[in-house]
Amino acid sequence: MSVYNNLKFNSDGLIPAIVQDNQDGRVLMMAWMNRASLEATITTGKTHFWSRSRQKFWMKGESSGHTQAVKDIAFDCDGDTLLIKVEQIGAACHEGYRSCFFRSITDDGAGARVTEPQLQTPEEIYGKK
Amino acid sequence: MSVYNNLKFNSDGLIPAIVQDNQDGRVLMMAWMNRASLEATITTGKTHFWSRSRQKFWMKGESSGHTQAVKDIAFDCDGDTLLIKVEQIGAACHEGYRSCFFRSITDDGAGARVTEPQLQTPEEIYGKK
Repeated sequence: MSVYNNLKFNSDGLIPAIVQDNQDGRVLMMAWMNRASLEATITTGKTHFWSRSRQKFWMKGESSGHTQAVKDIAFDCDGDTLLIKVEQIGAACHEGYRSCFFRSITDDGAGARVTEPQLQTPEEIYGKK
Repeated sequence: MSVYNNLKFNSDGLIPAIVQDNQDGRVLMMAWMNRASLEATITTGKTHFWSRSRQKFWMKGESSGHTQAVKDIAFDCDGDTLLIKVEQIGAACHEGYRSCFFRSITDDGAGARVTEPQLQTPEEIYGKK
């Protein structure tokens, strides 16, 4: 009996994966996995995803060096979402913030405010394009 | 300028919302919102979602009493995922666990183990069906 029997991939063969810092619980990002990227994540202990915009298999940190070492992979009651606890190297967000969730909606629901410092600029992470 | 300009709803008009306990950072659940449920969440301060399986607008806790008081609504760099911090009353999971992510994949990747106690049975929450 494989754990994959507990999981439901959507009609595109994908499942959303929430990535959380194993130390302090900060939610870092959400990305999508297909079965191959989940298998690679389990086998290698580093997170791998499927990019819907680029239609490409990728390892988190392959360009930036900001890899994620997997500590736990949980799945929800419906089996259609993953929660992955990691040790994050550097910024998780490609915009240079520790978390992709660096903006919150203001109390009046009208605007947004930045809630954490930018650790690096994208140019510092990826080099000038 | 509305914050909705920062958000991307998918082709079904939905955006995934990660729900996290505001006190200890436990990720409780992931569910989907349409614009109306996000507006209701902002206006009322209680989480509202869109059920894809039931095709229905719902307030979390409307049957169980296990409501979620909203403390913060963040959105990610791509604007296509929400992270909502809440004060959770009772179990977030309809199976009676505090978190829907109560099972983790075993280290060999083959099976699953339960990682937290069941607080109530579904029958205790919803009554016998």
